[in-house]
Amino acid sequence: MCPPALIPYKPKNPKTRLSALLSQEEREQFAAAMLEDVKAAVKDAMCSPVLVCSELFDSEDVQVTIADTDLSGSLNAILPQNPGPALIIMADLPLADTASIRRVISTEKDIAIVPGRGGGTNAIFMKEPHKFHVDYYGASFLKHMKIAEDAGLSVEVIDSFRLHTDIDEPWDLVELLIHGTGKSRAYLEDLGFLLSVDKGRVGVRRGQ
Amino acid sequence: MCPPALIPYKPKNPKTRLSALLSQEEREQFAAAMLEDVKAAVKDAMCSPVLVCSELFDSEDVQVTIADTDLSGSLNAILPQNPGPALIIMADLPLADTASIRRVISTEKDIAIVPGRGGGTNAIFMKEPHKFHVDYYGASFLKHMKIAEDAGLSVEVIDSFRLHTDIDEPWDLVELLIHGTGKSRAYLEDLGFLLSVDKGRVGVRRGQ
Repeated sequence: MCPPALIPYKPKNPKTRLSALLSQEEREQFAAAMLEDVKAAVKDAMCSPVLVCSELFDSEDVQVTIADTDLSGSLNAILPQNPGPALIIMADLPLADTASIRRVISTEKDIAIVPGRGGGTNAIFMKEPHKFHVDYYGASFLKHMKIAEDAGLSVEVIDSFRLHTDIDEPWDLVELLIHGTGKSRAYLEDLGFLLSVDKGRVGVRRGQ
Repeated sequence: MCPPALIPYKPKNPKTRLSALLSQEEREQFAAAMLEDVKAAVKDAMCSPVLVCSELFDSEDVQVTIADTDLSGSLNAILPQNPGPALIIMADLPLADTASIRRVISTEKDIAIVPGRGGGTNAIFMKEPHKFHVDYYGASFLKHMKIAEDAGLSVEVIDSFRLHTDIDEPWDLVELLIHGTGKSRAYLEDLGFLLSVDKGRVGVRRGQ
């Protein structure tokens, strides 16, 4: 089994909530490094990465480009075209590893869903993608549970902090500096980011 | 196997970072409800809850009371007294469920460690507690990995968002309202807490 891993990706001006710590160019390089980490993990788990973008960009990756629509619209246009199982996984999950992705794609249920922080959805594995559709706005985890229920599909919720931890806010960088092992952690360290402990609480600071 | 589950617990004025949302009395009741959820989960996983407190309080639970020392000191006084395996698990993990705790206590390694948000340690299972000691200040997860390594103990890091999610900050309540199933979620709902979605971001608000 070598299902496609659809990875939505925004190369230009991503991760704006990190703007206090990283310039636009740095955020673009950091997002690219996180994407590399996710791609490495899905490949190790025997999935084939396919980037889903709103515009074509310079990359050797397989890309599906859909303009003039949002994330959910793009994915819902692609899903019915997959004859076999498909995975959707976000590009900002640099703690993703082979073991956690294998737990997702080896589900015995019709669908496996990985909740993200704050009610989001970080990954969805569908054995029959044409029976499902996505809706990423707001508390998407609860929406996706409901969509699966309405479609009569059985669901496994995957209990993984590695896939639960999407990197959006400055304090999320703590998780990456502690648990990361790939290119995005190395990129942060090259920029001089370090863990800092103040009154017992752990944060990050930028040295150099 | 029915190992003790040592649960550090502070009945008076807990969870001060939730003070903007909850009065002291409410925080005490909320902490008690989270403790009930953790106790229910460890009992279902065939562990025996033992509360570790700095002062005796009114409860039917088995308690070990150690005054005049901090959390690490208390636990380090207790650990060598355990002839068999022991679990330490925090009281503010209301998403803990039987499956996640079973993954911890069924490790094939000498020790299983569950990292918490922000570099903390939410649970530790030790087959031979006298060979280990804890140090909860700061980035305790990294410290505990080092302590295990220095002691020559093999370690499994448990990848669970249910056990990773300690409830400290207002935005953590989102996780409880989405993924919780026990008394602490019900307590929040009784107080009128609801999920709210603003510009696609999920938060909580207190109605009524």
